[in-house]
Amino acid sequence: MTQQADLDLLCINTIRTLAMDAVQKAGSGHPGLPMGAAPMAYVLWTRFLRHNPANPDWPDRDRFVLSAGHGSMLLYSLLHLTGYDLPLEELKNFRQWGSKTPGHPESFATTGVETTTGPLGQGFSNGVGLAIAERFLAAHFNRPGHEIVNHFTYALCSDGDLMEGISHEAASLAGHLKLGKLIYLYDDNRISIEGSTDLAFSEDRMKRFEAYGWHVQRIEDGNDIEGIDAAIRAAQEDERPSLISVRTMIGFGSPGKQGTASAHGEPLGADELRLTKEQLGWPLDPPFFIPDQAQEHFRQALTLGAWQEKGWTARFEAYAQTFPELVKEWRQWMHNELPQGWADDLPFFSTDAKGMATRKASGQVLNALAPRLGNLVGGSADLAPSTKTHLEDQADFQSGHYQGRNLHFGVREHGMGAVTNGMALHGGIIPYGATFLIFSDYMRPPIRLAALMGLKVITVFTHDSIGLGEDGPTHQPVEQLAALRAIPGLTLIRPCDANETSEAWRVALEQANGPVALCLTRQNVPTLDREEVASAQGLRRGAYILKDFHVRQEPDIIIMSSGSEVHIALEAAQELVLSNISVRVVSMPSWELFEKQEQDYQDLVFPPGVQVRVAIEAGIVQGWHRFLGLRGRFVGMNRFGASAPYQTLYDKFGLTADRVKQEALHILEKS
Amino acid sequence: MTQQADLDLLCINTIRTLAMDAVQKAGSGHPGLPMGAAPMAYVLWTRFLRHNPANPDWPDRDRFVLSAGHGSMLLYSLLHLTGYDLPLEELKNFRQWGSKTPGHPESFATTGVETTTGPLGQGFSNGVGLAIAERFLAAHFNRPGHEIVNHFTYALCSDGDLMEGISHEAASLAGHLKLGKLIYLYDDNRISIEGSTDLAFSEDRMKRFEAYGWHVQRIEDGNDIEGIDAAIRAAQEDERPSLISVRTMIGFGSPGKQGTASAHGEPLGADELRLTKEQLGWPLDPPFFIPDQAQEHFRQALTLGAWQEKGWTARFEAYAQTFPELVKEWRQWMHNELPQGWADDLPFFSTDAKGMATRKASGQVLNALAPRLGNLVGGSADLAPSTKTHLEDQADFQSGHYQGRNLHFGVREHGMGAVTNGMALHGGIIPYGATFLIFSDYMRPPIRLAALMGLKVITVFTHDSIGLGEDGPTHQPVEQLAALRAIPGLTLIRPCDANETSEAWRVALEQANGPVALCLTRQNVPTLDREEVASAQGLRRGAYILKDFHVRQEPDIIIMSSGSEVHIALEAAQELVLSNISVRVVSMPSWELFEKQEQDYQDLVFPPGVQVRVAIEAGIVQGWHRFLGLRGRFVGMNRFGASAPYQTLYDKFGLTADRVKQEALHILEKS
Repeated sequence: MTQQADLDLLCINTIRTLAMDAVQKAGSGHPGLPMGAAPMAYVLWTRFLRHNPANPDWPDRDRFVLSAGHGSMLLYSLLHLTGYDLPLEELKNFRQWGSKTPGHPESFATTGVETTTGPLGQGFSNGVGLAIAERFLAAHFNRPGHEIVNHFTYALCSDGDLMEGISHEAASLAGHLKLGKLIYLYDDNRISIEGSTDLAFSEDRMKRFEAYGWHVQRIEDGNDIEGIDAAIRAAQEDERPSLISVRTMIGFGSPGKQGTASAHGEPLGADELRLTKEQLGWPLDPPFFIPDQAQEHFRQALTLGAWQEKGWTARFEAYAQTFPELVKEWRQWMHNELPQGWADDLPFFSTDAKGMATRKASGQVLNALAPRLGNLVGGSADLAPSTKTHLEDQADFQSGHYQGRNLHFGVREHGMGAVTNGMALHGGIIPYGATFLIFSDYMRPPIRLAALMGLKVITVFTHDSIGLGEDGPTHQPVEQLAALRAIPGLTLIRPCDANETSEAWRVALEQANGPVALCLTRQNVPTLDREEVASAQGLRRGAYILKDFHVRQEPDIIIMSSGSEVHIALEAAQELVLSNISVRVVSMPSWELFEKQEQDYQDLVFPPGVQVRVAIEAGIVQGWHRFLGLRGRFVGMNRFGASAPYQTLYDKFGLTADRVKQEALHILEKS
Repeated sequence: MTQQADLDLLCINTIRTLAMDAVQKAGSGHPGLPMGAAPMAYVLWTRFLRHNPANPDWPDRDRFVLSAGHGSMLLYSLLHLTGYDLPLEELKNFRQWGSKTPGHPESFATTGVETTTGPLGQGFSNGVGLAIAERFLAAHFNRPGHEIVNHFTYALCSDGDLMEGISHEAASLAGHLKLGKLIYLYDDNRISIEGSTDLAFSEDRMKRFEAYGWHVQRIEDGNDIEGIDAAIRAAQEDERPSLISVRTMIGFGSPGKQGTASAHGEPLGADELRLTKEQLGWPLDPPFFIPDQAQEHFRQALTLGAWQEKGWTARFEAYAQTFPELVKEWRQWMHNELPQGWADDLPFFSTDAKGMATRKASGQVLNALAPRLGNLVGGSADLAPSTKTHLEDQADFQSGHYQGRNLHFGVREHGMGAVTNGMALHGGIIPYGATFLIFSDYMRPPIRLAALMGLKVITVFTHDSIGLGEDGPTHQPVEQLAALRAIPGLTLIRPCDANETSEAWRVALEQANGPVALCLTRQNVPTLDREEVASAQGLRRGAYILKDFHVRQEPDIIIMSSGSEVHIALEAAQELVLSNISVRVVSMPSWELFEKQEQDYQDLVFPPGVQVRVAIEAGIVQGWHRFLGLRGRFVGMNRFGASAPYQTLYDKFGLTADRVKQEALHILEKS
């Protein structure tokens, strides 16, 4: 072996043994992947990855995604070794409370972790979003002779990622868009939790990715670092996204466990750990041993990274001199700031009894805002004409036309969710997606991860109830509002008319972090007379007194509602007040915004003394009892919908003013 | 043209014009797919499909799935024309309240509809489950010279189906399993809602399916019925699953709309309808016109079907003579009956303070039941060792070993859900799936469809809370219990110990229809002393008084809980009673089962007069206020979890007896 080869092996075995020791100490974790994939990760991180461990926020750094998040110790080892702010103590504290080394990588917990992974296929698809963001920003900002955006997106993915359907969606989209700066290393270890991948996974992966339009290469030996090196080089030159399939042995080096499922997800055990270190020619003690030579070699990333960033900074300064306006915009986008006057064109809608669908209002709002928000980029999962999310004056984002702001995600809701997450993770962009509310079920995993990571991603969900009518129960959400409200950190807003829709977009865009779901109607709803009822600006508090229909000082009853049922609540109130009953109508577009208000405000809207309460919403009751109490009544759905014109459905399912009135009278009688 | 060709065209145009007229009359719907795909559907239904419209329940019929469910009028036309119980009046009543012709096909609404489709990719994957069921039953029941199970599964699928990730999962699995009796027609019309599929979908579909191990054929002209005929013939002969890609023109025959997105999802309009009928050489009046010759030709299905079924019946009778025991089993399986004594080996677990994980108990229960329930067939999405769902004494279901009962779904949760739905739809099998509870998010669409269709599918969800510990928040469910409880018709059961787990399986298997989700722990929980507390049989009522710790007749407070938190509730009660407080502990494994009980029982468990209530569950509060009221207190999660040993997490997040006690004292003080 050459000296270089010796050093390479020393570094690779450092990664391996750190992973083994950390998993052993924690008493749980996944040693097998880091041990098998260490060589490819080593090659990528020491020979290709342009990053500066001292400044993980350098905007033009290459992105690295560990899609196979269970192999987290691989990433933690690399971060520590190359000089990120991750002391060895943290590696010794793997998987413990408060550590920076949780079981799966968390972007919000650990500097240098680009995205939160673990649920398979998500990181794979985030990478596509990162690469889309890179191409868009490059097309928008770069000028001849001035290139300030130009980086690669790398990922390491596993059999599990490739089995998950979301990888199909994201890979097909990436191939379509010819995202040539996307380079994925596939850890082809042929082992899954149940045993050999032969049990369930015999597709020809290479051919499949060729079918997506990817550039595909194959390395037969996971320890062939020069082969890996050459493949990454070739991938960088190719105009298509690249998959480099590397045949590895899970748990490499472990005499008793390598190549078996038992190396995947549990500590090697003290004896096997010893045998493995012997096999690798590694000192048995101390654990977490890092040879000086390896340490030194990895830490060159700091010098090299500083030099690379310095080069970029010089280019950026020249750019700033030449294009001061663009740089102003760059800074706003990168700092997630909205430009002055961004909301000046937010439409106000005139009172209209016939009204308009909130999806239609949303389309008008979006198009009014788009010209001033050049980084609002998104699209729909093949439903733009229905979700009204097309930016009319903007181009499509397509291969060779990366300045376009309209994305066509195809019928790929799950992929869309993870891709918009990746776009948000990149920085510089406010991404949005759109589909029917029912299909939120297809994309819950990325919505949850957006909430966990606190990503500013807006999703437009239209056709938000049985109010969509004839398409029937397969398309009619009844439990989706509840199911989305269940996700911690997601803000759901279901506006009641065109003006609340305008306010909803304002709130969504002002939100610094955390995803927002806008739930909008297919059918028309009246545009309320805001001289008669309170201003739609109340929406930002989540719930507000829309109108007190009072014959006395205090309300006898509170009727609360959201979205397309608010006008029914108003109608019921108008009838009840004729019977000498004081009624308060509360518009409640967002539970989450309401729960952020101070208790005083909450008690003002819902005085604790007024326990006669009715809620109406075209969804299930789940969660409403929090505001209704044991005595309150709910008018909504307790079953799936049906196929019929929507007015018929509202009537048949009792979503009517009359029913609200009856429920109100019923409780009043009892009390 | 030959006379035959004339007749073919007449029949095809009958399908086309029925679809056009029905959509036009309904004022909404999807005419484009039926118009383009009519020829292939015609060929399949009149030349290949073995079915008897007079007996849609004939067990050995070929199955046909319209995966592209929006083209429902294609299926309704075929059902009516071939003689199913679907009168023309129903076609005229398309998409209306109470009709048998809802917007998307519903298996429970319309005789002859094999599965409920519309959400794209679901039908595609149901078909794989149907084909798995067919192969399993064939392997189990057929004997040399006696073949009572041998049918094809056909589907018609669309671009949308192929874009969805679930189609990747199901297709990869079908190819792996070499399901040669699966034949899919792909309506390659190159149009999606946003426009040309070129906008987002440029993958090489043929090559992709070849990579999955499918037999792939291509028909260049959707009207080439002899080509389609030959392709189906070749597909029947091939040992691999088949995809026949048929290049069609959406809205074929419409001069102004064919080949465009506007033919997809809205009526043609009166003028275009007229022009189209002219183009097709069709009388303008009456609408819903069916030429006698076409009618007669289609109705031959009745004669042919009766003859085919008769042949099968004769074979079946010979089989019954020879194999009386097998026929007894066949009848039980097909009628969804459990054999006598099926639960005799259901284990009872001894009191054990250390206890065992409910997933482990579940594994023992499942394995105790399996020998007596030969049609309990299932597996896990690559987590069998963790979910404890492997049937130890049974073989794997693999290509050429179709008698095996252990399925390996691979890391394909979404596909697993839809495949188990397909298995249930076939009849004869009790399918189960398994994964971690967190990954229920990956498979909500098929869970919902199982609930909508009332399918008996059991899903085992283990690792059901932060109690899984170190894997961290990406793997820790907090909102999943609430999100699943939100689905109408799904029964969720979260047993508190080994004996409740036994009862949970009993209830799940006794349930005649509707899906069941069993939510189980990773960590040990004490096996309660059932002499000290009530029998675990109380589980079947959803909630039951586990124990009254009384110093007085009536409880001062009720503590309710589910699963791994029940023993914490008991501990809290033991402490509270020392302070002279009467405490009732309610074990509440299933809200849905409880809500089916009579009001008297519900009031017995939760006396309306006792409003001092505390609930503890390692999930979010959503929904609990229904039982807690405005005054009740909840001990649970209001954020995502964290990576640490689970005891630490319970402590840090306050899921402790002490906290329950404090909350109880707090309310008692206030009242």
